[in-house]
Amino acid sequence: MTTADDLADRVRDGELRIHELEAHADHDTAAEARRLVVERETGVDLETIADYGFPAETAEPNIENMIGAAQVPMGVVGPATVDGGAADGEYYLPLATTEGALLASVNRGLSVIDAAGGATARVTKNGMTRAPVFRVDGVAEAAETVEWVEKNLETLREAAEATTSHGELLGVEPYVVGDSVYLRFAYDTKDAMGMNMATIATGEACAVVERETPASLVALSGNLCSDKKPAAINAVEGRGRSVTADVVIPGDLVEDRLHTTAEAIVEANTRKNLTGSAKAGALGFNAHAANVVAAAFLATGQDEAQVVEGANTITTMDARPNDDGGHDLYAAVSLASLEVGTVGGGTKLPTQAEALEILGLQGGGDPAGSNADALAEVIAVGTLAGELSLLGALSSRHLASAHEELGR
Amino acid sequence: MTTADDLADRVRDGELRIHELEAHADHDTAAEARRLVVERETGVDLETIADYGFPAETAEPNIENMIGAAQVPMGVVGPATVDGGAADGEYYLPLATTEGALLASVNRGLSVIDAAGGATARVTKNGMTRAPVFRVDGVAEAAETVEWVEKNLETLREAAEATTSHGELLGVEPYVVGDSVYLRFAYDTKDAMGMNMATIATGEACAVVERETPASLVALSGNLCSDKKPAAINAVEGRGRSVTADVVIPGDLVEDRLHTTAEAIVEANTRKNLTGSAKAGALGFNAHAANVVAAAFLATGQDEAQVVEGANTITTMDARPNDDGGHDLYAAVSLASLEVGTVGGGTKLPTQAEALEILGLQGGGDPAGSNADALAEVIAVGTLAGELSLLGALSSRHLASAHEELGR
Amino acid sequence: MTTADDLADRVRDGELRIHELEAHADHDTAAEARRLVVERETGVDLETIADYGFPAETAEPNIENMIGAAQVPMGVVGPATVDGGAADGEYYLPLATTEGALLASVNRGLSVIDAAGGATARVTKNGMTRAPVFRVDGVAEAAETVEWVEKNLETLREAAEATTSHGELLGVEPYVVGDSVYLRFAYDTKDAMGMNMATIATGEACAVVERETPASLVALSGNLCSDKKPAAINAVEGRGRSVTADVVIPGDLVEDRLHTTAEAIVEANTRKNLTGSAKAGALGFNAHAANVVAAAFLATGQDEAQVVEGANTITTMDARPNDDGGHDLYAAVSLASLEVGTVGGGTKLPTQAEALEILGLQGGGDPAGSNADALAEVIAVGTLAGELSLLGALSSRHLASAHEELGR
Amino acid sequence: MTTADDLADRVRDGELRIHELEAHADHDTAAEARRLVVERETGVDLETIADYGFPAETAEPNIENMIGAAQVPMGVVGPATVDGGAADGEYYLPLATTEGALLASVNRGLSVIDAAGGATARVTKNGMTRAPVFRVDGVAEAAETVEWVEKNLETLREAAEATTSHGELLGVEPYVVGDSVYLRFAYDTKDAMGMNMATIATGEACAVVERETPASLVALSGNLCSDKKPAAINAVEGRGRSVTADVVIPGDLVEDRLHTTAEAIVEANTRKNLTGSAKAGALGFNAHAANVVAAAFLATGQDEAQVVEGANTITTMDARPNDDGGHDLYAAVSLASLEVGTVGGGTKLPTQAEALEILGLQGGGDPAGSNADALAEVIAVGTLAGELSLLGALSSRHLASAHEELGR
Repeated sequence: MTTADDLADRVRDGELRIHELEAHADHDTAAEARRLVVERETGVDLETIADYGFPAETAEPNIENMIGAAQVPMGVVGPATVDGGAADGEYYLPLATTEGALLASVNRGLSVIDAAGGATARVTKNGMTRAPVFRVDGVAEAAETVEWVEKNLETLREAAEATTSHGELLGVEPYVVGDSVYLRFAYDTKDAMGMNMATIATGEACAVVERETPASLVALSGNLCSDKKPAAINAVEGRGRSVTADVVIPGDLVEDRLHTTAEAIVEANTRKNLTGSAKAGALGFNAHAANVVAAAFLATGQDEAQVVEGANTITTMDARPNDDGGHDLYAAVSLASLEVGTVGGGTKLPTQAEALEILGLQGGGDPAGSNADALAEVIAVGTLAGELSLLGALSSRHLASAHEELGR
Repeated sequence: MTTADDLADRVRDGELRIHELEAHADHDTAAEARRLVVERETGVDLETIADYGFPAETAEPNIENMIGAAQVPMGVVGPATVDGGAADGEYYLPLATTEGALLASVNRGLSVIDAAGGATARVTKNGMTRAPVFRVDGVAEAAETVEWVEKNLETLREAAEATTSHGELLGVEPYVVGDSVYLRFAYDTKDAMGMNMATIATGEACAVVERETPASLVALSGNLCSDKKPAAINAVEGRGRSVTADVVIPGDLVEDRLHTTAEAIVEANTRKNLTGSAKAGALGFNAHAANVVAAAFLATGQDEAQVVEGANTITTMDARPNDDGGHDLYAAVSLASLEVGTVGGGTKLPTQAEALEILGLQGGGDPAGSNADALAEVIAVGTLAGELSLLGALSSRHLASAHEELGR
Repeated sequence: MTTADDLADRVRDGELRIHELEAHADHDTAAEARRLVVERETGVDLETIADYGFPAETAEPNIENMIGAAQVPMGVVGPATVDGGAADGEYYLPLATTEGALLASVNRGLSVIDAAGGATARVTKNGMTRAPVFRVDGVAEAAETVEWVEKNLETLREAAEATTSHGELLGVEPYVVGDSVYLRFAYDTKDAMGMNMATIATGEACAVVERETPASLVALSGNLCSDKKPAAINAVEGRGRSVTADVVIPGDLVEDRLHTTAEAIVEANTRKNLTGSAKAGALGFNAHAANVVAAAFLATGQDEAQVVEGANTITTMDARPNDDGGHDLYAAVSLASLEVGTVGGGTKLPTQAEALEILGLQGGGDPAGSNADALAEVIAVGTLAGELSLLGALSSRHLASAHEELGR
Repeated sequence: MTTADDLADRVRDGELRIHELEAHADHDTAAEARRLVVERETGVDLETIADYGFPAETAEPNIENMIGAAQVPMGVVGPATVDGGAADGEYYLPLATTEGALLASVNRGLSVIDAAGGATARVTKNGMTRAPVFRVDGVAEAAETVEWVEKNLETLREAAEATTSHGELLGVEPYVVGDSVYLRFAYDTKDAMGMNMATIATGEACAVVERETPASLVALSGNLCSDKKPAAINAVEGRGRSVTADVVIPGDLVEDRLHTTAEAIVEANTRKNLTGSAKAGALGFNAHAANVVAAAFLATGQDEAQVVEGANTITTMDARPNDDGGHDLYAAVSLASLEVGTVGGGTKLPTQAEALEILGLQGGGDPAGSNADALAEVIAVGTLAGELSLLGALSSRHLASAHEELGR
């Protein structure tokens, strides 16, 4: 049996390369050998990275050149009380982060939301996109290609859907820039985040486009998808789930629990999240939505790089006159492009699967897509809680001191 | 001695709330109790989340309501060969991700870069920002406030720097929108990512502004910072490190290793990363910079939510005529706002500290700031490798099939 | 008969206000009186403003408080040789501007295009939009409203189209942000620019929405239209006409006429129009499209304020290998949201109508919409000419000296 | 003496080209000949275009290939009551437009502002920019170039200012993207809009950069200027004048004159101008600033194409509690990049010069720059009036009917 030591020696001697070790030993031994290689070259003892709690083979679909695992502290907040289109009831939301004070802040917000009777949430749009770019000879061929696509949606659907048992092609939107034609395919990918499904299906459809039109494929992704880049096309038209959550907080709750007033929070939201973001040329009009989205993504096995567009949020606040002559606080978050799944990707890894089980949303939903919908709604409510809490703190001027105390 | 069971009972009975447990037991027991509460309510066995490899107390500055840890597979790529302003030589870059094929892709890119003699990298700008928003009576007071700030930079510097032994105030940029005045403070925070330092220092400076001008603080962050939102102000002016990395790949290497040509990669880059992103209304002109940035951030204890702006990258490619009558490939990535640190935040956690040690960049650098500079440069080179590899694959039309095979 | 002097006296005495004069005299006398008022108060002799060449009454739909006319120098460039979807053949393009060197530049570009056999142009999308914003109680009502709209498009169409003999409702796209619902109505307005038509039709449809759903209208325009603001929604989805024009310039023509090479122009275009604009956080990726669009709008009676989005252009250039071992230049402009009309608005004014007649495009086309399509195509070709000429000049480093000589 | 007929014949016979006619006759004859050419080819009678009221020679710095003039109806609104940094007192503002209802709307707004005691306005930033792009070998040379520029500002200043008697170099900001270096030069150009001055001065400075560094000039404008494109760099950092105007309208005036309430206007502003524009991915957060800016630019001889960035405006509104238990309306417009001049460009043309005289702002100010400052402030107040009036109308639901009646 090959030992890790042997493998490490052979890497040192140039006989093997570090990405080839799984061909010569089981996955855990390969990871151990790789650690040895790194330890010998850098003199570092990789003790805690080695201390991962799952068979390395489990992670094969998720990583290459594995040496172990990063351990990121995980906590829970909640319960989040949600009246959603798919989510319904109370949820503990697991969050993994290194950002001190974050869970305390979200938890405070959720507690205020709960006291106000819970939040409402809805997925208002759903579609995973992939947008290949084609080369044409010029404007005339571009127009010809667009026309063909618009008339032959069914042919494209057939080709695309042949590659998947779950996904459905929702539509194809063409865009022309000079001699480039971009076709933005959108799919209902049910409980999967769906980028692979969309990529593979679109690949088949592209073959049809190339066969039937003068267009020639340049890249299967032409950045109008747009994946992992902040892009107005996602902010406007959505990608993955577009989800909105809101709550009305009675004025006395705002005072008792957030130690401020609806008017003061609205002022902070307007000057900071609307006007400030406007002046900054931002694609995000919120306080710290990314904190909650990133921590929830990390805990539940979502794609961390999709935080870029997943966190795209407009936070709106309004002081609504109430019967007591004061004002209640209406607060909402609208996330344009939250790409989440409860099957596939990182969701099968042990800690991530457990985190999804805490939410009761691990695996495929019934009906299909409802688990991912519910996950989107709960994350939106968590985001709302974070916004409420931070804006409350800002308008009570507690931010710096909270950071100072809590190390955030 | 209080047991976890006792604590969980008391939470169930409403005597304790889940965020109060650390006041009644050591941190590991508190975490265990919290898991019990969740397990009882949800029926889920939190076995792997419980299997974390560090004393819970260690994570106190990073999380509240801890129940354990998320384990994310970590691998290494490299060596990355870097000729940087601070980085110099060969680096193994640890990446934590659940995105299959990512490390294979980056590793391929790094190998091509290494074969081409390594990449060059430079931090061209550095400054962590915090931008409070003030309320004034109107335009006249706004102008008055701006004038005071411009004339009293030294007073502000004194106040700000009194709060920190390391940080230096680099400047204050005022922006006026109606009766809101935003002051964007920029700091050199050395090896710390520095947001807390900047926030605390700015808090002190704000007190001076409020005392000396008619302006009244509304929020310590007014979103012109701009933290964790995609914002043009960061893309244009930078935040944290602005860092650029490039390489020239000889034409034959492009052919042998990427199985395509410089011209084909340039075409893909132009149609996808430049024109496609332009049409998408994007703030990111790259293929998948966020993948590398997110994975490196996760491995090395950076703030995952800052991937939003950290991944802001323009990828440029050029086919340069060579002596063989063919073309070499010039490839560059320019990251505008990469916020990284090698001290503070999540960098002290065990697996994260080890990952930084693999890079030889754990803790403060000599001179101060050089470790964070080097980290920025190595991440930039990793990003460059990812761009090269993906664009190579796209221009060889391998994307869909690679995904299919590798589960990405 | 009331004289201008009398009227001016009565304004001075506070009996009349300056916008009421048309009620007391014919339009030319009212304008004269208004000039007298201004002349008396400011001591300025409004001799040339008074020297307008049309009955003041003609301008009644276009202006209030008229005192005369601004005279802006008008010239012609061309012929522009266009192979369009609607335009076909040679066109003199009238341009009104005060920007020295502009017409010379565009004319040079058109001459090169003509020598290359003319440009191709196509309108690839058409739709004038108006997007009212509604208030709802919250997310649940928002989802309910969106659902109603999606299921009742025919009802909305009926209401909208009842207000117009020409316009056709193309579709309604809903967007939700918290307790605001935006409905973006798009119309085919044929040869009219169509904003009034769209506004009036949408007003009727709004009444239906208010009657049938819980939504309450806040403003007939909610800025997702988006009129006269640079907005990604227009850049991505278009407004008015999306039109693209391109040409292939043989390498020798580039050399003889533009005194540079295809490669040099492509380099300038990439570094300036693509990468530079990317770094600038721009919504326009071109050199000076606005110059041509503004001058053509002014000459032909379009809405000058719509230059803001009308000029939204991506300029793409490519060096295509030719049979001589050199490179031809492929050049294209893609204007996303060119709002033009040949009927209504300012098109009926005398000089503007003559300018449209020069183009052979005054009044309604046959089929309806074809005149406005053709106008869009010719303006696109003019824009292409301007881009070619300026990029040629830049890559020959002539810009500063040209300006110096020509006063631009 | 050559007649227009002769010239037209020679053009027809291919002896002369239409841009060469001024070499063979006086300017008016040349224009006449050009009209003849067009009339013969198109059969159109250019009667009103011919009816221009100034010697054609006057327009030589402004146009080539002149055939006459476009006549655009001009009116006046006001008085605008302004308490500015440079403007002071009452101003009639001339506006040229074809947009019916516009002047009525602005006039209504100005009348409300006047009744409220006038508006306050301030220019808070001033600097005309030009940003050349240079090619370097790579990142290392880019860093070297940036370092040289930062250390040698005085050398650049000397070179730049040698070309101008008025302009002052304010600073140079470097930006690096791969192997492109952009240097954004900013100038105080006093009463001139200053783009030519900035271009020529920068041209000289570029020669120094090329001599002293490895950088090689690619284009004198690299689009980080950014001229005539909507760009975040201008919205954030300004170009030309950054100017803000505001007013507090007592609640009873809002009711009496705008037939609505402060709260209703604030709601419309928030949902439309802030949230709507945010969702639209806009760089403009206003209702119709471009209408006023375009009409004022046209009347006073500014560069119409600069409406693109000149109209970049954030409109903010706030309901301020007053002593009567109601709310006053605070309203402000903040224009980031208003490029205006009172000397040079189109300001010398007869109708345009008269329009500037109406404002008392024709020619150079004392001190230098004060006339252009005042013009910026008055235009800002006009814009504020337009916003107030339109938002008032929207919140009273009058928009569609106003349009219907007034043809706008």
